Amino acid sequence: MPTIKIPSKKEVVEAHNRIKPYIHHTQVLTSETFNRQFSTRFFFKCENFQKVGAFKSRGAVNAVFSLSESEAEKGVATHSSGNHAQAVARAAALRGIKAYIVMPDNAPSVKVDAVKGYGGIITFCKPTLQARETSLNEVVKKTGACEIHPYDRFEIVCGQATAAKELLEDIPNLDIILAPVGGGGLLAGTALAARYFGNQTKVIACEPAGADDAFRSFKAGRIVPSENPQTIADGLLTSLGVLNFEIIKNEVADIVTVSEKSIKQAMKLIWERMKIIIEPSSAVPFAAVLENKVDVENKKVGIIISGGNVDLKAFL
Amino acid sequence: MPTIKIPSKKEVVEAHNRIKPYIHHTQVLTSETFNRQFSTRFFFKCENFQKVGAFKSRGAVNAVFSLSESEAEKGVATHSSGNHAQAVARAAALRGIKAYIVMPDNAPSVKVDAVKGYGGIITFCKPTLQARETSLNEVVKKTGACEIHPYDRFEIVCGQATAAKELLEDIPNLDIILAPVGGGGLLAGTALAARYFGNQTKVIACEPAGADDAFRSFKAGRIVPSENPQTIADGLLTSLGVLNFEIIKNEVADIVTVSEKSIKQAMKLIWERMKIIIEPSSAVPFAAVLENKVDVENKKVGIIISGGNVDLKAFL
Repeated sequence: MPTIKIPSKKEVVEAHNRIKPYIHHTQVLTSETFNRQFSTRFFFKCENFQKVGAFKSRGAVNAVFSLSESEAEKGVATHSSGNHAQAVARAAALRGIKAYIVMPDNAPSVKVDAVKGYGGIITFCKPTLQARETSLNEVVKKTGACEIHPYDRFEIVCGQATAAKELLEDIPNLDIILAPVGGGGLLAGTALAARYFGNQTKVIACEPAGADDAFRSFKAGRIVPSENPQTIADGLLTSLGVLNFEIIKNEVADIVTVSEKSIKQAMKLIWERMKIIIEPSSAVPFAAVLENKVDVENKKVGIIISGGNVDLKAFL
Repeated sequence: MPTIKIPSKKEVVEAHNRIKPYIHHTQVLTSETFNRQFSTRFFFKCENFQKVGAFKSRGAVNAVFSLSESEAEKGVATHSSGNHAQAVARAAALRGIKAYIVMPDNAPSVKVDAVKGYGGIITFCKPTLQARETSLNEVVKKTGACEIHPYDRFEIVCGQATAAKELLEDIPNLDIILAPVGGGGLLAGTALAARYFGNQTKVIACEPAGADDAFRSFKAGRIVPSENPQTIADGLLTSLGVLNFEIIKNEVADIVTVSEKSIKQAMKLIWERMKIIIEPSSAVPFAAVLENKVDVENKKVGIIISGGNVDLKAFL
């Protein structure tokens, strides 16, 4: 079994310096209403205001700009149902190379349009993991493009770590950071950032009960893949990556699960009270607060709002 | 006819100092997407992030805190279908006095709940201007409370002027400021702020075609009241006030009208691209941009986002 290389503090700092010209240092919002309600202090790191509307920009820019000239010249490729697709398409455009994106044919139109807007070359496939991987392999074979995995990749984890790094630079000495977990790119990065830039900062992951492979993997001490996951939090349907789990099992304090009802309630509350659009996946940590799954009282609690890409056709 | 007293620069500055401890200095957001699309630079003054979710906090706090002890002791009263009601209830609570709020019985539940949350004492009435005024007169007679008109009041205009004052302090030398117009409190305040703190800054008002009394009044040179106004922009249904029109006719460069379709489209675009919740009334200025009613090319354009109180029950 090959040794898994974990990003060092220096490598996360280098990633941040590499991506800074191309990403936003996003705002941290607070809510007096929520602070009062839960007798605590929340700090919402608003990656919904990030480029392409999600933290995925960080990892994608870092991965694309870490490639050597010869690796980059044939372009990059990935499969993604959403934010990673846009992020890779945008990063490739910034570097002036091609992006081949495999998307399931049921992807929200707002995400498809956004990928096209960044010049991404889309191949549609059936909405199964197998179809996506097969299509991606064909695209890579045909084009010679470099595959950028959405989360199970060293440069992606380094990039995603920069969200919590910025949060801890803006709000030092957080007691807890809550982050959602899907494939584990954001969570692994957040956990590394907490270790490197925090001060005894605990990272607690929040996951939909209907897609709880990270919860089960964490308890079992080995990767337990998803089986037919179902959740409104469509960014969290994927199973944990290998590099991601290696970091998560060592650096994350706990993983808690939440109901679909709480996710919807959390999303509605944040829309209504904070006047920001967040996607369902981003509501999962606050859902854990609503369900009292995390002890937040009298603490400084960071919450990573992972993105804001919602297909508003359903609403407006 | 009594002389109408127009707020001076000094009085607006004093109002700002009076309210600063109780309101947010709200953010100014930008959008590279919109800037590129319209070859201009937009600066969105985000009063949706203001206390109670709307600019109305400014005027209400100024009005309530301008009262003498003897005027204040019996409380304040107003009729409002929404944001002004919450704003007065909150301002009264801050000063430790009672707030009597007359609300139409079809007011959105989110707004009713918010008034109750601030301790406001609600009297419901039929949703007509006459019923509201009759109920308010009864309440004032019974309680001796001081009536705080939503817009046709000196202190309200001074307070609302502080939104554009902050915007011009943060982004000097704006060429244009676009603001929605209903009763004219925000618009009159914005126009005064542009004169006092701008540099040849033109104020253009934007109004739903279905509630175009300000447009018609502006063209006629006298107040032409609304007749059965119909618009999704429910904050803009009211007719111009006397003080408001006096300022508007002298200080506003133009008033343009927009369709309901454009308002909905503008709201959706801002939700989707900027990831912020704005209410329909706040989308009216950007709707004017979409309709090419305002020449924004190669200019610095401020847009007042007046509020973010939407009843999300309809959506989520």
